[in-house]
Amino acid sequence: MKLELSRVVQGCRLGVLTGLGKSGQHSLELPGCLLYTRCATVPHLTQDTLLTLSDLPAVTQVSVDSLAEHQEVLEEFKEGVRKFAGLHDSVIFCSLHDSASPSPAGHVTNKTVSVWGSGGRIELTAARFMSIQAAVQPDCYQSMADGETWQANTSRKRVRKAVDRTLAHLDECLVLHQKTQELKRAEIFGVVEGGDILEERLRSARETAKRPVGGFVLDGFHSSAMDQDVRAQLIQETSAELPQEKPRLVLGVGRPDEIISCVEAGVDLFESFFPFQVTERGCALSFNYTIDPDPETAGTSASTVLEYNGETPEVKKPIANGDVENMTPFEINLKDKRYHDDFRPLVEGCVCYCCQKHMRAYVHHLLVTNELLAGVLLMLHNMAHYLGFFKALRDAITSDRLQDFKNTVLHRRQGDLK
Amino acid sequence: MKLELSRVVQGCRLGVLTGLGKSGQHSLELPGCLLYTRCATVPHLTQDTLLTLSDLPAVTQVSVDSLAEHQEVLEEFKEGVRKFAGLHDSVIFCSLHDSASPSPAGHVTNKTVSVWGSGGRIELTAARFMSIQAAVQPDCYQSMADGETWQANTSRKRVRKAVDRTLAHLDECLVLHQKTQELKRAEIFGVVEGGDILEERLRSARETAKRPVGGFVLDGFHSSAMDQDVRAQLIQETSAELPQEKPRLVLGVGRPDEIISCVEAGVDLFESFFPFQVTERGCALSFNYTIDPDPETAGTSASTVLEYNGETPEVKKPIANGDVENMTPFEINLKDKRYHDDFRPLVEGCVCYCCQKHMRAYVHHLLVTNELLAGVLLMLHNMAHYLGFFKALRDAITSDRLQDFKNTVLHRRQGDLK
Repeated sequence: MKLELSRVVQGCRLGVLTGLGKSGQHSLELPGCLLYTRCATVPHLTQDTLLTLSDLPAVTQVSVDSLAEHQEVLEEFKEGVRKFAGLHDSVIFCSLHDSASPSPAGHVTNKTVSVWGSGGRIELTAARFMSIQAAVQPDCYQSMADGETWQANTSRKRVRKAVDRTLAHLDECLVLHQKTQELKRAEIFGVVEGGDILEERLRSARETAKRPVGGFVLDGFHSSAMDQDVRAQLIQETSAELPQEKPRLVLGVGRPDEIISCVEAGVDLFESFFPFQVTERGCALSFNYTIDPDPETAGTSASTVLEYNGETPEVKKPIANGDVENMTPFEINLKDKRYHDDFRPLVEGCVCYCCQKHMRAYVHHLLVTNELLAGVLLMLHNMAHYLGFFKALRDAITSDRLQDFKNTVLHRRQGDLK
Repeated sequence: MKLELSRVVQGCRLGVLTGLGKSGQHSLELPGCLLYTRCATVPHLTQDTLLTLSDLPAVTQVSVDSLAEHQEVLEEFKEGVRKFAGLHDSVIFCSLHDSASPSPAGHVTNKTVSVWGSGGRIELTAARFMSIQAAVQPDCYQSMADGETWQANTSRKRVRKAVDRTLAHLDECLVLHQKTQELKRAEIFGVVEGGDILEERLRSARETAKRPVGGFVLDGFHSSAMDQDVRAQLIQETSAELPQEKPRLVLGVGRPDEIISCVEAGVDLFESFFPFQVTERGCALSFNYTIDPDPETAGTSASTVLEYNGETPEVKKPIANGDVENMTPFEINLKDKRYHDDFRPLVEGCVCYCCQKHMRAYVHHLLVTNELLAGVLLMLHNMAHYLGFFKALRDAITSDRLQDFKNTVLHRRQGDLK
């Protein structure tokens, strides 16, 4: 694995991660995202359906919590989760938790962390954690970490302990890593903790950077953990302590505005659980990310290549369903009655399968009648839209037009930017 | 629409229904099935995924219960459910109810029947029923019917009333059909009722046959309504009253053994809700339908081209989940622990997407962790298996080998046939 940075503009790192996978033939453009999966499958989608999407990330994310219960089977199978899940040509990154379903707090000890499978809590020592990795056989994985520093009023002492424990886990993982034949070609990502305390973040970053890790995971920065400005500031200062030539993945950050902010602070990689969350609440990503092709007019106008649909955000009008109270201004709620006779595609100009074949009214109809295809169609659109956003972000950095890009993406959210 | 019978063997009608669809270019081989959908979509599957299946029926079934609430939108849309659902090239058959989710009894009056949408009960007069058909714009549809004769101890008087009402509804539908521009090229199927009373069945058949209908729907024969021998006897005698040149569709019959029995009694068409029910209980169709290619040895052996996996039926070992108590001997329960380390495909030799790409252990893993792809994969396999069964049935009739076919299909169910 090798990180080739082509440019750094206003803190944003543009580059490509090469030499990925067993054969070393895969690469991943940065800033970019991992492909979110549960049980090594993108929710709702078969591999064939997934392959209708453009710009698919080469790296698939799996998590220990969904695989821990199946350790024995994977050990018996012997060929790792890639082949077990029928993914014959993908790079696997294994993280500890699934960011779409946060784990309960209060179950970390000096020697263990816990994950939750379908049968309940599973307590992991570093040894057990590493034996799971040996069964999963990922190409990269994060080391075991104590990430419980995100609750309000976490004490400085507790944060310090989290940093200490995470470093101790890393050291133990590194020793076992060396001894494990199945992980011979795998890379380990060290985890940077420290909550919202800058000096702990810096200590965690410096100490982790001293170890032979392939990259860094920035933990404890997820959306509900802290204010966006605090996060950006902390990440920026933490990043400065990390070697330029190794990738930085932030966990739990999915909103487009937060992604832009993290990229400006020096983050390279994200997860893609966000489009899945949007899908599960019956929503469709609909924000604009296409900047005006003519830079001369872009500064004065928010006009775009795609016809903009002009819906007003619906965040203040939650309906009685699942996660709708967590809706963001980047999406529209297709369960809303207003779409029952809306014969337009989800997003005008979108080339995804759903938008090419179906109307909002039909997806609304599938949602209100609880039809199973609704999730498939929304997942296809939302993943396509999200991957398109990352590509447009890279293009904007390449062409020195990040400010136009930000104005475009944030346009719907902040009326004063119009 | 034209029915061309190529042969009738032991009561089985082999043929093809031609001239279907707006352009008249579609045809459907008999005996065969309609493509089951909810809201005009095969549950879990996109059109593209569906098209990976062989031998897809040209006729898609939709039902009034899932569409009634959307009448206004369909009227505003003006182009019918085919285009609304993104099905640009399919023949639509519209039935009253969804056979996979039986409606509550006790809501039929002299002038109305009821259907249940997501918002509750909707009472339909014949006029309302026909206005829905005008909005749906099917190619064929069943007329409105009083089908409430399936409960045990339904009185002779009640059965007679059901036949009378159904004939009255048909007459009213036929009058409105003539006046409806949107249904100008559509065919109406008359519904034969009569419960388990032969003389009412015969009266219903004779009277319906006098009307200008395109085909017949045999209602009230579904699996839970009566014993298989009673059903076969009633259908055989009823069929004799129906004109040879018009198709007969039986509702609510899905099990392979019952299908064979109905085909021998003269039925041409079935629904395909059965593979969906199997999918929803986490099961995979696994019965054998491939007869020995050498007729000389077929009579003495149940050996097959496909490697037979030899599982014992699991019907007596229900687990605590949904509909598993309704499992049939034609399927295996992939949620069962025994499959957690079974690295074989669902059915050895099966060429469906699921069996080509995935192992039983992986589908088991998706099911126990409630992963959304499980339904997609199972639906693909089960529909492929079911369509393969129908094709094999037609081939067996063509080659005069129905008895071998029956022995093969029923093999697992009845040990004494081995």
